[in-house]
Amino acid sequence: MPHRLRSTFIAAGAVIASTAGAYGNPQRRPNIILFMVDDMGWQDTSVPFWNQRTRLNDTYETPNMERLAREGMLFTQAYASPISSPSRCSLLTGANAARHRVTNWTLHRDAMTDGPDDQLLPPQWNVNGICQSQGTPYTFVARSFVDILRQHGYHTIHCGKAHWGALDTPGAAPEHFGFEVNIAGHAAGGPATYLSERRFGHDADGRPTYEFAVPHLQQYWNTGTFLTEALTQEALKALDNARHLQQPFYLYMSHYAVHVPIDRDIRYFTKYKQKGLSDKEAAYASLIEGMDISLGEILHWLDANGERDNTIVLFMSDNGGYATGAEWRDEPLYTQNAPLRSGKGSLLEGGIREPMIVRWPGTVRAGDRCDRYITIEDFYPSILDMAGIRHKAVDGRSFIPLLKHTGDPSRGRALIWNYPHVWGNTGPGIDMNCAIRLGDWKLIYYYKTGRKQLFNIATDISESHDLAAERPDITRRLSRRLGRELRRMHAQRPTRKHDGRPCPWPDEQDN
Amino acid sequence: MPHRLRSTFIAAGAVIASTAGAYGNPQRRPNIILFMVDDMGWQDTSVPFWNQRTRLNDTYETPNMERLAREGMLFTQAYASPISSPSRCSLLTGANAARHRVTNWTLHRDAMTDGPDDQLLPPQWNVNGICQSQGTPYTFVARSFVDILRQHGYHTIHCGKAHWGALDTPGAAPEHFGFEVNIAGHAAGGPATYLSERRFGHDADGRPTYEFAVPHLQQYWNTGTFLTEALTQEALKALDNARHLQQPFYLYMSHYAVHVPIDRDIRYFTKYKQKGLSDKEAAYASLIEGMDISLGEILHWLDANGERDNTIVLFMSDNGGYATGAEWRDEPLYTQNAPLRSGKGSLLEGGIREPMIVRWPGTVRAGDRCDRYITIEDFYPSILDMAGIRHKAVDGRSFIPLLKHTGDPSRGRALIWNYPHVWGNTGPGIDMNCAIRLGDWKLIYYYKTGRKQLFNIATDISESHDLAAERPDITRRLSRRLGRELRRMHAQRPTRKHDGRPCPWPDEQDN
Repeated sequence: MPHRLRSTFIAAGAVIASTAGAYGNPQRRPNIILFMVDDMGWQDTSVPFWNQRTRLNDTYETPNMERLAREGMLFTQAYASPISSPSRCSLLTGANAARHRVTNWTLHRDAMTDGPDDQLLPPQWNVNGICQSQGTPYTFVARSFVDILRQHGYHTIHCGKAHWGALDTPGAAPEHFGFEVNIAGHAAGGPATYLSERRFGHDADGRPTYEFAVPHLQQYWNTGTFLTEALTQEALKALDNARHLQQPFYLYMSHYAVHVPIDRDIRYFTKYKQKGLSDKEAAYASLIEGMDISLGEILHWLDANGERDNTIVLFMSDNGGYATGAEWRDEPLYTQNAPLRSGKGSLLEGGIREPMIVRWPGTVRAGDRCDRYITIEDFYPSILDMAGIRHKAVDGRSFIPLLKHTGDPSRGRALIWNYPHVWGNTGPGIDMNCAIRLGDWKLIYYYKTGRKQLFNIATDISESHDLAAERPDITRRLSRRLGRELRRMHAQRPTRKHDGRPCPWPDEQDN
Repeated sequence: MPHRLRSTFIAAGAVIASTAGAYGNPQRRPNIILFMVDDMGWQDTSVPFWNQRTRLNDTYETPNMERLAREGMLFTQAYASPISSPSRCSLLTGANAARHRVTNWTLHRDAMTDGPDDQLLPPQWNVNGICQSQGTPYTFVARSFVDILRQHGYHTIHCGKAHWGALDTPGAAPEHFGFEVNIAGHAAGGPATYLSERRFGHDADGRPTYEFAVPHLQQYWNTGTFLTEALTQEALKALDNARHLQQPFYLYMSHYAVHVPIDRDIRYFTKYKQKGLSDKEAAYASLIEGMDISLGEILHWLDANGERDNTIVLFMSDNGGYATGAEWRDEPLYTQNAPLRSGKGSLLEGGIREPMIVRWPGTVRAGDRCDRYITIEDFYPSILDMAGIRHKAVDGRSFIPLLKHTGDPSRGRALIWNYPHVWGNTGPGIDMNCAIRLGDWKLIYYYKTGRKQLFNIATDISESHDLAAERPDITRRLSRRLGRELRRMHAQRPTRKHDGRPCPWPDEQDN
């Protein structure tokens, strides 16, 4: 079709270009599905992500994750931010949270969500989230990889939780970031309820009861369809449509599960009660299994439609499992991600280590396993690499070499976290803090007290032995690196109320 | 907010940049509304676009267009393509139809909509419409100005008819082109029906009865709300939301009216019957007035919300009034755009001359009038100029100098049309043809017969005196220019069945 080549031209503002390799054979580019679960802990699965099975692995039933792990590569040390907005903004932009400054969770425009502190003031972070255009204050402006995928011929589908921009800002709408289809995504970071009987948060007149009411799913109201299943059904419809388009597709299957409220998915709840779990824990397990069933339905769609071999499936969560509130989880708290310590909101492993799996037929060996560390901003360059699109990532590094066993991008690399905020809930490692992972070592620095914790993650996954005093050399080295990396990314830190001065950086503070 | 500047960065693929002028004062950029009516003729209004009032001006009642004309500039010689898809694709890309090759109307993927001809074969045109990415055959790949507006901080709203890409292609979805909100737009170029009692083309179970069923408007089904009004109500909601976003907005208010089926808008039908119009013509007049009422409601919203002075309103149609089918219009046919000859589908003035008005408070003088010619692809550079965004238009020329009386982009410019197709309906000037307007002169060339018509538009607006034989010098000059321009844009032409050779270009054919 030479006429089509001739009719191509370069328009204002940006170049519509394909990579040389993909050009002419766009059909060969793989479909990509990112199956993202909300607030799912590293052990909230029957797949063992540690070097041994745990009590939690024996509690939860996730046969479809087991299948995915059998057919792909399991990452034992995949990380994210300790809460949702920082992780999701890093995912979409490839920038570390210290750089994009959406370091706390977003909801209302121009409004901080920080809890109060008697000594410190939080920095003026990007409370409005991320955005692709200038003009909205307190946003990080960057282009999403989804917009780039769309430009390069991918059909782009959003299903579920978005949580990229505050209400009444451009980034509240997934469409702003290049999604051509948006199912149920908006500003809010959680669902009002999973229950169709409560119309996913709408009153009898169809009005949202508050900001967390899940939009778009009217046809499922009062049908007994649990939110997780309604989203899945809509995603499958969108996939059916994607086939007609004859483009490769990107599906961001972003479940609201397993975020609070921990409603009972009655399809599975009774089974876990019969296994002896409490009401709360059985409800949690039912949310997990409902999510896994959704994964199974999507894998089945790929099988049934002949798309399995041409589709990359990535499984990920955005932060650790919820472990801080007795309203939703049973006592003892902070043990819900064992052997990891603490949970969502914490810079201890329980808050940031995620269950990650990648299935890529023909490229990733079935049943493979990777013990190198990667983090959430690495998805940006990795997904663009998978699509064969040249790019320039800000902080993320492609994990393709790990998938192919052709290199180790984690060698010498420091992972950085920055959370200069009061989240609200409290617990171990939940404070105004920052952290670095370098090799086997991890250092956490607390802005308020100047306290440092040093752990050897390889030998002490539960972070129960603080070696900061015992190993001042390593503590000093990691403090220097952490301080340098934070300043390089223009990170923010809290201010002391009594003298208006910023808290010291970790390398400005003696061990 | 220095932190926001620092947090800006350049992402892969394209630069997120603002113009120097707008940067820092994005709020000052104007809102832009393009109010586009479908199939509306140059005389389908009480506003006189000619140098005298006509019978049609006295028939139709469009007081809100009258207001807009009083407050802005009226263009007496604004042009478009003779049918919808070519015009709308030129609008979005700034490319002439001869270049983008979406020269006929689109609907089904990979399927020509051309009528049969015993002697000629149509060229393989871009039957799938336009697209922003590679990979779909028979599309013109270009970036829409809407995507550029979005990138530069505009909130972008589509309401009504889209008609940019065939079914099951990326361009079928307005979201693909950068619209953040899509109300009722899809592949189809017309409405199944305007009647809510018929659920805008859905059956009692909510399934579309055929491709023209209007999507998204379930809440208006069986409410007695005419389609034109339902779209208006949804557009006003979207404008309310746009105010919260605190961005400038671009609203493409693209009415399905007044495309066939010419349903009665009962709010206005009886009045026109009482004025003595036939059922068909009263129904048509009611569609026109309903469209005008919609314009009034939008102008009222601007007044009530203090956005009048900061909003540019452009009024336009996509081709001439429907004049070829006795099923919808009364005899005599081809007179429905009088004093212009013929109508939709024709390269005579009745098919391509449009009612155009621009209101731009503070820039355009109230009650101004422009008699220079412009054409549909000029909206692309003009709208980007209005937004203060640098761009490089392909064929369109900005009409800002006309609005400001600072220049005349029409001087020496040739307008070009190319329609190498059989539309289906027949009538004067409806054939496989191409045309050029240069100064006061217009030449139409018919591919099949080699016939040429030459008209002096300034003295013979009805194109009743063919001067081709009388002025061979001008005929030859315009033929040469037309041939050159068509080849420069890589235009397509029909092929002769008997010898498989392309029809001659106009300058390869003797007068």
